[in-house]
Amino acid sequence: MPELRRDPVVGRWVIISTDRARRPADFRPVAPSFPAMSLCPLCPGNEAQTPPEILAYRANDKAPNTPGWHVRVVPNKFPALQIEGELGREGLGLYDRMNGVGAHEVIIESSEHKATLATLPEKKLEDVFWAYRDRILDLRKDIRLRYVLIFKNHGAAAGATMEHTHSQLIALPIVPTNVAAEIDGCRDHYRDKERCIYCDIVRHEIADRSRVVGENAEFLSVVPYAARFPFEVWVLPKRHASYFEESQKFQFEALARIFSDLLRRLDRVLATPPYNFILHTSPLHERTGDFYHWHIEIMPKLTQVAGFEWGTGFYINPVLPEEAAAFLRDADI
Amino acid sequence: MPELRRDPVVGRWVIISTDRARRPADFRPVAPSFPAMSLCPLCPGNEAQTPPEILAYRANDKAPNTPGWHVRVVPNKFPALQIEGELGREGLGLYDRMNGVGAHEVIIESSEHKATLATLPEKKLEDVFWAYRDRILDLRKDIRLRYVLIFKNHGAAAGATMEHTHSQLIALPIVPTNVAAEIDGCRDHYRDKERCIYCDIVRHEIADRSRVVGENAEFLSVVPYAARFPFEVWVLPKRHASYFEESQKFQFEALARIFSDLLRRLDRVLATPPYNFILHTSPLHERTGDFYHWHIEIMPKLTQVAGFEWGTGFYINPVLPEEAAAFLRDADI
Repeated sequence: MPELRRDPVVGRWVIISTDRARRPADFRPVAPSFPAMSLCPLCPGNEAQTPPEILAYRANDKAPNTPGWHVRVVPNKFPALQIEGELGREGLGLYDRMNGVGAHEVIIESSEHKATLATLPEKKLEDVFWAYRDRILDLRKDIRLRYVLIFKNHGAAAGATMEHTHSQLIALPIVPTNVAAEIDGCRDHYRDKERCIYCDIVRHEIADRSRVVGENAEFLSVVPYAARFPFEVWVLPKRHASYFEESQKFQFEALARIFSDLLRRLDRVLATPPYNFILHTSPLHERTGDFYHWHIEIMPKLTQVAGFEWGTGFYINPVLPEEAAAFLRDADI
Repeated sequence: MPELRRDPVVGRWVIISTDRARRPADFRPVAPSFPAMSLCPLCPGNEAQTPPEILAYRANDKAPNTPGWHVRVVPNKFPALQIEGELGREGLGLYDRMNGVGAHEVIIESSEHKATLATLPEKKLEDVFWAYRDRILDLRKDIRLRYVLIFKNHGAAAGATMEHTHSQLIALPIVPTNVAAEIDGCRDHYRDKERCIYCDIVRHEIADRSRVVGENAEFLSVVPYAARFPFEVWVLPKRHASYFEESQKFQFEALARIFSDLLRRLDRVLATPPYNFILHTSPLHERTGDFYHWHIEIMPKLTQVAGFEWGTGFYINPVLPEEAAAFLRDADI
């Protein structure tokens, strides 16, 4: 019998259609195909091909925009938003608009063209998280900006347009609808019970164990109860924390450990799948300290997402979350 | 300068990134590729390959499940939901679940394998809408069901798994989140202003004209102000109406006319693109008569949708809605 499950935070129901359940090998990853490029603009030596860098971590004291870096952040060459200008908020009859003020940046996660986050040493992966933090801290000084969305499209099938491993940052003058819905759900739960709902989820999942993939002193990786996608996994800090960018050094170390572990499990079980992840963190200037809990949501791109899913927010997941977790837990990495 | 626009109903903001604007010919439709099939289970003569029909329109008085039909509705052979059983609602600690009770049906829109909705005669297209209506009226007798979601995936790139032209129906024991958000937005507007927000949109767009694609006595086709996707178009009844299934015959005739016109314009401008459409109509047993307004949202599948779009509900549209409307209006059909 298929099952309907409700996400406790945003109230989204999903169909877990167990009759269609398949084993991991049944998901053939869509073959990634990147447009042929004579020169990768994200590789060392080609720094002049990108706009000048905003941030770079270098082992040496070489000049900016020269090789020697292992993480490098540059403005997107084709930005969806522009950093200069006034917000220009206005109403047009029924409608509301503002100028597309914001930032659109590329976080180059490694100097090696063929590296992936799963193959990076943990220390290098940790530096990617430090770069996210440094950029959020810098951007939150800009009072026009309300939210920093950090995400990664890994593989052409997941929407990446360049092969060289990178994530993206979009800083927005508004809070996206789904982020607002998540925060509202957390606020409601806190008003009712004086507890953070993600803290409740962490406690429940650690006690239950059936959906847990991995755990260390600081973090939990877990398939969510109402997973929208096959092998969707969330990484949550075990201690309550609203703002990703305020994490401590030992927490970033622990995050790199659990994240690396998780990505290697996904690569093993699903044969290096394309995936997306999204950092869910608090809006920049809202006080969400008591009730919101930052986390990362990772979604392997295994099934064709039809228009009706993005049109309705309604998902059919052919894999039982408990089975996905078991496959990942049992992976031989 | 890119622009941020807010959907007045659900409050969703989109980035209209005009710097990336492209002409229609720049969108190469992803070549549809269906798995090779020796026999199409939806073609006349193969009626035994599907579960027994629920509904069929026949010009003759032949027996069910034999050729002679021009619209035929059958249960999905691999249903996401099952029609038999109790709801079995229960709470599991934090979480809520129920059994996957519901219906999953396939509406075969033509007996001709190679037909598309754009090539069907208007009278035949009208019959597809009658079939939607008949199925909704039948399913709303079942008090376990709350919502009937009717949608179409056209082309392999838009998620269709069979080439033979068809739409799908999923009847659910819950109201999907995005439908609930839309209804909440309408209710709020009505409480504030005692007007239906879609009626306001229809009046605004008819007066403004810059986003109008087509119009007849009963319907308007229009690119929405805050379109999420390039060439997204909505078809709205000009008279207020909450329930698609309560439309009159002259309205279905007018709907077939405007819908056929629109699909032919999309085919012309975008070279027969893959697309999805979703019928947005009222939940079955809610009284939304004053404030909710049914309509159809059509989304050509032209761009790669990355995970972050479905993860965040946040969209970047590279085509100005007014330009998309002008291309469609000017199409030589």
